[in-house]
Amino acid sequence: MSAACYVGEGQLTVMELAPRDPGPGEVAIDVAYTGICGTDLHILHGAMDARVTLPAVLGHEMSGTIATLGEDVSDWSVGDRVTVMPLAWCGHCPACRAGHPHICHNLDFLGIDSPGSMQASWTVPQDVLVALPRTLSLKDSALAEPTAVAVHDVRRSGLREGERALVVGGGPIGVLIACVARTTGAELLVVEPSEPRRAFAQSLGLHAIDPTAADVPAFVADWTDGAGAEVAFEVSGAIAGIETAIQSLAVRGRLVVVAIHGTPPPVNLFRVFWRELTLIGARVYERSDFEEAVALLESGAVPAASMVSGIEPLTSVAAAFSQLESGRAMKMLVDCQAGG
Amino acid sequence: MSAACYVGEGQLTVMELAPRDPGPGEVAIDVAYTGICGTDLHILHGAMDARVTLPAVLGHEMSGTIATLGEDVSDWSVGDRVTVMPLAWCGHCPACRAGHPHICHNLDFLGIDSPGSMQASWTVPQDVLVALPRTLSLKDSALAEPTAVAVHDVRRSGLREGERALVVGGGPIGVLIACVARTTGAELLVVEPSEPRRAFAQSLGLHAIDPTAADVPAFVADWTDGAGAEVAFEVSGAIAGIETAIQSLAVRGRLVVVAIHGTPPPVNLFRVFWRELTLIGARVYERSDFEEAVALLESGAVPAASMVSGIEPLTSVAAAFSQLESGRAMKMLVDCQAGG
Repeated sequence: MSAACYVGEGQLTVMELAPRDPGPGEVAIDVAYTGICGTDLHILHGAMDARVTLPAVLGHEMSGTIATLGEDVSDWSVGDRVTVMPLAWCGHCPACRAGHPHICHNLDFLGIDSPGSMQASWTVPQDVLVALPRTLSLKDSALAEPTAVAVHDVRRSGLREGERALVVGGGPIGVLIACVARTTGAELLVVEPSEPRRAFAQSLGLHAIDPTAADVPAFVADWTDGAGAEVAFEVSGAIAGIETAIQSLAVRGRLVVVAIHGTPPPVNLFRVFWRELTLIGARVYERSDFEEAVALLESGAVPAASMVSGIEPLTSVAAAFSQLESGRAMKMLVDCQAGG
Repeated sequence: MSAACYVGEGQLTVMELAPRDPGPGEVAIDVAYTGICGTDLHILHGAMDARVTLPAVLGHEMSGTIATLGEDVSDWSVGDRVTVMPLAWCGHCPACRAGHPHICHNLDFLGIDSPGSMQASWTVPQDVLVALPRTLSLKDSALAEPTAVAVHDVRRSGLREGERALVVGGGPIGVLIACVARTTGAELLVVEPSEPRRAFAQSLGLHAIDPTAADVPAFVADWTDGAGAEVAFEVSGAIAGIETAIQSLAVRGRLVVVAIHGTPPPVNLFRVFWRELTLIGARVYERSDFEEAVALLESGAVPAASMVSGIEPLTSVAAAFSQLESGRAMKMLVDCQAGG
């Protein structure tokens, strides 16, 4: 069976691996599609070598069909169409005991800390399965995981109907956040310097402005009659993005920190104090976010098909990574089916 | 009438000023005591020259007795003992309209943006008056304003019974926060490098540790069975204080940003993401905080008398400032009474 494996900094190889038979409480999934995430690019760049075990099968955004059931699996059947919420928690650490298992102190993130879905057959615990409706295609379903990230981010923001929200960064997660956020009845503005990314956001009916051409806080002040935005999502990962978000927020505004800042950036805590802002960390998702993500994909509120820039077979996985790396693609899928 | 005036960087003078007769809706207060705040030291250092008008009568932590009523004042009587919540808002800006007038875009902070209480007679709008109970001395009442800051900070944190909270910085505001916080039934830990300040906190029954001698996050992990603290208050104003607070927090922990950071400090947003922390800005107080502060002073939960390191007459105001500046005093009061 073919599997896309990270084998060291900058090296991605398609290897032949033996499928693993499902043990008790596990299922083997015939993987249909696996999306490539920014995290997969980080792994390929060697930035997460402390977490991965070589050769590391990548992939955690997927869809597929259950092929084999292990012992003690009674709630699922062969042929069920599924996606996977790729988190396995310990159940006994302080975070798990406090009811936040998605931030478990000993979290196993499938596709990072253990083998992922960029292979024809993937064996996982039944606890991570999420059912897919018949009316949602397996291609569209591969976007459930990043959509669940967006649902979680929006839920953490507490965004409500009638509020104004800024999404700083119009890449895949930024656009997904904007699509999910507008389902609340809020007004959205995407801030993105790349013209093709702005054009893509606009093609989805989103407003998008260029922070290199406009004074974003002044623009937001005009838009909100001097108040500022109630909510901002920092998805850019740039120091300037944090400042833009903070300067654009209203009194008591909420900033969701979505992007990963590896080095502590300067943060305008004076403004946080002055306007009584709240900064909210958001990490992955909970099961309710995943289920909501599937529902939003099914309803079309999140336009999965528009988000997919291309699909490559598993044998051409390197080409798919290169296309995502170029910044010209929103979401690349890898077709993991045997005949794909 | 004598008044303590800031007249330029480093210069504090006692000047003779004519008392201002109260206009419609105003009262003149015979000031009893005025506390010196860290903000008054900032003003004296010239750091707030953009806001003050020279000569600037300092002081915004006070107690006194109503001496004269202007027209249209019907809810107050001559002889009423009062303190002042020193905020005058515009009523029509976006923050006021949103129900947050204490963070008014055009806020007049009495004692900074307009004349303060470090004078024998102070004329203010009746809207800022807060009644004092007969059982609370005028000396103790002068601590109502900084106690209201602490009440507001604790309220913003959402601290609940049984939670563990860290107060990083054991100066006057840190100790007041700790005293107010323990009335919720939470367990408190003060982190303070100065031995005399730790000793003072301990004299009030608070636990206090030295961050230069202990690994604070490791200490907190032990204290909380590996979970981390649910709440932290950053009152130190130091970059290291922010990191100590962030590293000590549990999953979904809340950090209240109390200290003013004039320059954007580096903030560990990776940890904010990783543990889904929330950073909460807190500025001044609302009327309910002020009323709660008076009640906590009256009940003795906030030990006002212990907090006061010394009292100087208005004519010796410079000595009182010097003593606070030395770092050896917690709270210095200025006796503003004619015979004081």
